[in-house]
Amino acid sequence: MTVQEYMLSLGVTAKAAAAAARRASTEEKNAALLEIARAIRTHTDVIVAANKVDLERAAAAGLDSASLDRLALNELALENIISGIEQIVALPDPVGQMSDRVIRPNGLKISKMRVPIGVIGMIYESRPNVTIDAAGLCLKSGNAVILRGGSESIESNRALYRCIYEGLENSALDTGIIQLVDTVDRQAVGELLTMSGYVDLIIPRGGKGLIQRISAETKIAVLKHLDGVCHVFIDAEADLGMAHTIAMNAKTQRYATCNTMETLLVDREVANCVLPDLAKALSAEGVELRVCQETATILNGEIACIEATDADWREEYNAPILSIKICSGLDDAIDHISTFGSNHTDSIVTENVSKADRFLREIDSSSVMVNTSTRFADGFEYGLGAEIGISTDKLHARGPVGLEGLTSQKFIVHGEGQIR
Amino acid sequence: MTVQEYMLSLGVTAKAAAAAARRASTEEKNAALLEIARAIRTHTDVIVAANKVDLERAAAAGLDSASLDRLALNELALENIISGIEQIVALPDPVGQMSDRVIRPNGLKISKMRVPIGVIGMIYESRPNVTIDAAGLCLKSGNAVILRGGSESIESNRALYRCIYEGLENSALDTGIIQLVDTVDRQAVGELLTMSGYVDLIIPRGGKGLIQRISAETKIAVLKHLDGVCHVFIDAEADLGMAHTIAMNAKTQRYATCNTMETLLVDREVANCVLPDLAKALSAEGVELRVCQETATILNGEIACIEATDADWREEYNAPILSIKICSGLDDAIDHISTFGSNHTDSIVTENVSKADRFLREIDSSSVMVNTSTRFADGFEYGLGAEIGISTDKLHARGPVGLEGLTSQKFIVHGEGQIR
Repeated sequence: MTVQEYMLSLGVTAKAAAAAARRASTEEKNAALLEIARAIRTHTDVIVAANKVDLERAAAAGLDSASLDRLALNELALENIISGIEQIVALPDPVGQMSDRVIRPNGLKISKMRVPIGVIGMIYESRPNVTIDAAGLCLKSGNAVILRGGSESIESNRALYRCIYEGLENSALDTGIIQLVDTVDRQAVGELLTMSGYVDLIIPRGGKGLIQRISAETKIAVLKHLDGVCHVFIDAEADLGMAHTIAMNAKTQRYATCNTMETLLVDREVANCVLPDLAKALSAEGVELRVCQETATILNGEIACIEATDADWREEYNAPILSIKICSGLDDAIDHISTFGSNHTDSIVTENVSKADRFLREIDSSSVMVNTSTRFADGFEYGLGAEIGISTDKLHARGPVGLEGLTSQKFIVHGEGQIR
Repeated sequence: MTVQEYMLSLGVTAKAAAAAARRASTEEKNAALLEIARAIRTHTDVIVAANKVDLERAAAAGLDSASLDRLALNELALENIISGIEQIVALPDPVGQMSDRVIRPNGLKISKMRVPIGVIGMIYESRPNVTIDAAGLCLKSGNAVILRGGSESIESNRALYRCIYEGLENSALDTGIIQLVDTVDRQAVGELLTMSGYVDLIIPRGGKGLIQRISAETKIAVLKHLDGVCHVFIDAEADLGMAHTIAMNAKTQRYATCNTMETLLVDREVANCVLPDLAKALSAEGVELRVCQETATILNGEIACIEATDADWREEYNAPILSIKICSGLDDAIDHISTFGSNHTDSIVTENVSKADRFLREIDSSSVMVNTSTRFADGFEYGLGAEIGISTDKLHARGPVGLEGLTSQKFIVHGEGQIR
């Protein structure tokens, strides 16, 4: 069988399984999820051993330690994965939820029913836990999924998939609902991206390069997660203690996450009060500061900083680097974010309700916040239970995407013989 | 200025105007819509005269009478257009609507706010009324729009656009919110399709060929309206009188609409009772019948029919032609629709609630109906007020798309200094 034929066979199986998944009851889906969890618990040793094979090969190939960390699966990581499944079981089933019911003058009853999307193609890099998270979310939302993990984690993914398969076999559901692309041949991804007759949505999880390449290559809808150039704006009417705490947290709690602050905006009126202490604290954490001229003047050579260029305002550092700019009020801050931001997550610190409302309304980002840290932009923090990804697109779903983002709505019409 | 430069200038203007449109209040938007309506009423003579130029040129070019009909704008048509605007004014403004509010254990208040998409590129064929309908829906939903009508209707569109411009000038809104591509150069569409930095969504209105061509050429999201292969299934437990009435209406009320029935499915148990009379009535209306062998046997040479091929089950005739197939129960009907349907609109006629529920749940179409005519799948009939199009896609919006489909939702987070 060629790679093309193999991928097509996965597509045909997935499409048939999607019809079965759409029909599955909440009880059947939850029972299958718990069977998968049970299989993972039963086969923990096998999974850890398979993961060791991946880790050894990766170490021999000279993978850096951060990448090895992401790849590693120990018993604790597997317990977390199992508890993730149990959380998905506990979430309400979005499929079949009815809303927007109206009765028209002719007596027709119109409403909307939430329904699965169909077949999801999930393409991800090294983390093997995505295999289970994605499988669980797709199953619970009534979709079929084709999983394509990174080649570094192929043995871990195979071991995890055997648990998924065993769980599905012990359930009332079709095993075709969850499939793993069981080859490291790179052509498999290319084939998947052409299968628009079989795949309804591609979800890539990985670096910006991966997502751009996938978007460029396919006519299938892609749930895109591109830049996270997130801002915190300290308004003139901010509680300055709170502003300090939020800015520190938004930058330093983790550096490599998409919802980390990359640019701090400060109203000129409070810049003198807030910036020296904040810059000092950031510097003490090892954060490099790239600042506008006015900020440099305020810091007055006492805190190390370099002058920002226009490129800095557009940059997602994913590193202990922060750009800082002084603004002349809310309008200026909104303008800056609209010009240089990436529509991901932005926060204002202010005690003024009107300014907060204007910021919430006018900033066109997937998450807009008042008096809190951008680091909260996350499916789990939002109570979505788990996320399949974060969307920076403006259609279908924006921000963290959980079960609901894996569904759509169809119209339901009840009549008693009405004709037009 | 080259066509490329011209289109880019429209894009830059639209993107800036989208920020203004997002901020506009409901009152400002409604006032602008009413100013546009007033301008159309004031300049009715000018519009009708411009339309006459289009009609004469089209007639000279040998356009068929159906196309000329679609192109024609008389005073009555303009009154309908104005009343369409007034209906849009009366609709609730989706922008700013809040939903899904939760308070997290840490006190963060998470909710969703409905927001405009941004810049819409509207590409349509001959009907000049789309110019006003689309402008009105985009404006009310807080989006900017670039309108590209058919070359046959360029003078009508220019005259209508002058009214739009006059209305916007007499309002508090930015005139850049609604722009018309004022050239018949075909390159303009090609340029529009490349402007992914400026346009968030392309909405094509026209034949399947136009929509496929546009989808193939652009990386921008496209609201697609492809095939409407709609089914009515007459179940064994149908009210047969109702079934007859619905089937007649779904086929014969209009032939060229996307929600017209193209295939009739009949349960074997009632085929003998329902088919002879129904086939006779359809024949009397001039409908050509393409039938399965079993149906042919029942019709027994008394009613003209030809044998259907597999191609017939997939065909959107848009004409007085109907394919008819006898099924062995609900499962068989669902299988047929899943295999040959186009996920547009399908209806079951049955008195059995369980069968109705299974049909509603398992048929994966944008509209699924019980005991009524597929012809009701329409934004106006659903109470959406007006529709910008019908989506056969499975993401973002399915079925008739009104104001809500021109918006998306962002996350809003209120804190009191929470950090992670």
